[in-house]
Amino acid sequence: MTQRYKITIAYDGTSYAGWQLQPKKRTIQGEVEKALFAVTREKSRVHGSGRTDGGVHAKAQVAHFDLAKPRDTFRLVNAVNAVLDRDIRVVRMTPVSSEFHARFSARAKEYRYFICNDRTVSPFERCYRAHIRQPLDVTAMTRAAKHLRGKHDFAAFSVNPRHKIDDTVRRISRLEIKKKGHTFCIIVVSDGFLYKMVRSVAGFLIRVGVGEVTPDTAKEVLISKKRTRSVPSAPPEGLFLWRVYY
Amino acid sequence: MTQRYKITIAYDGTSYAGWQLQPKKRTIQGEVEKALFAVTREKSRVHGSGRTDGGVHAKAQVAHFDLAKPRDTFRLVNAVNAVLDRDIRVVRMTPVSSEFHARFSARAKEYRYFICNDRTVSPFERCYRAHIRQPLDVTAMTRAAKHLRGKHDFAAFSVNPRHKIDDTVRRISRLEIKKKGHTFCIIVVSDGFLYKMVRSVAGFLIRVGVGEVTPDTAKEVLISKKRTRSVPSAPPEGLFLWRVYY
Repeated sequence: MTQRYKITIAYDGTSYAGWQLQPKKRTIQGEVEKALFAVTREKSRVHGSGRTDGGVHAKAQVAHFDLAKPRDTFRLVNAVNAVLDRDIRVVRMTPVSSEFHARFSARAKEYRYFICNDRTVSPFERCYRAHIRQPLDVTAMTRAAKHLRGKHDFAAFSVNPRHKIDDTVRRISRLEIKKKGHTFCIIVVSDGFLYKMVRSVAGFLIRVGVGEVTPDTAKEVLISKKRTRSVPSAPPEGLFLWRVYY
Repeated sequence: MTQRYKITIAYDGTSYAGWQLQPKKRTIQGEVEKALFAVTREKSRVHGSGRTDGGVHAKAQVAHFDLAKPRDTFRLVNAVNAVLDRDIRVVRMTPVSSEFHARFSARAKEYRYFICNDRTVSPFERCYRAHIRQPLDVTAMTRAAKHLRGKHDFAAFSVNPRHKIDDTVRRISRLEIKKKGHTFCIIVVSDGFLYKMVRSVAGFLIRVGVGEVTPDTAKEVLISKKRTRSVPSAPPEGLFLWRVYY
């Protein structure tokens, strides 16, 4: 009797070509599937809550997979972690109903984008922060964020969607900028994200923060539905998939 | 007219064979000297406050060097950091009197040793924490630490000193264990350290923490002046040179 398992995975995406399986490339999904196979000798597909791009991290990515033989999860977690490199950790594993689906059951996802707004980035944070030297205006960024919160067509905040997406309307339920010392954190929660949407929102908010565009530009960009130079993609290393809500 | 400069350097020691220059090995001192030469075209020796071993980190190592031609420190810091890899950062540079010596002028040094006392180490901290799975008893560790504070002969807490050292007496002015969630931090301040002294103290305190030796063993080990199995060297990745006091 097949048993489905839900796992929470933390990873440092620096050395990986993203979540999704790709031929000849090291990916998180690929590594987790390989480790599971090495331990269980069962070929199981690991379905994530969504992809993350190359260099993007996860504090708590969620995935599911099925095993023909039920297992002791405590021992399985230890065994899989022993096989995985230390930049990927399975932090939780629980048996779930076969109706649970990491992607389709997700109600919302939270991403956090971290920026070091100082002269130099600490060597210990170099892989986990975007670096912006010019002083960021948190008030302006917060005003721009207000325009982006809520239900909007985010076509202008997405990059060449690989698949044709008719519906580019999403609802951002939370968008906040927190400042602590020289570290800025952009928190985004939404029921769904378009391709590169968080990095586009972060890239835009950074441009607002350094004073290159005004906060009210956000409204025009949304209405235009066209990506322009005012919406660059912020670099991957600042981005963390923080939490998946079910 | 020669000008002396004092620099503060942060580094992630993971990819380096330690601070000190070694033939055919990448060292922090070597990288900083190379970067300074690339920028100034002056061959200057960089004198650190002391060595750190391979894999050991520094939040604030201090060093000094001389330049024949005086320089604008703001620009020099930027230029040197642009040449250095991102795991080494010059965080401060100031002109000082030629009487200042990074090593001989130091009054005391502070090291911090970090331990992750959880089932798994976060991927983001994997290079900056020792990993101890068994629960650590902070009360027992604190009691053992009390015995080690003050002026003692620390011969038993040092490893094969490369040079003959007659005097193995040192004064530890501060030795504390702080616990925050699953992270333990051992803070050590002393006027001087023997070779591998901090990692030996940390290794001993960990053995006390897991209950393999009693806190009072500390007294016996000190008196014995002989390193035994009860004093292992804790792994380098948990150790940070935290501050040098002048």
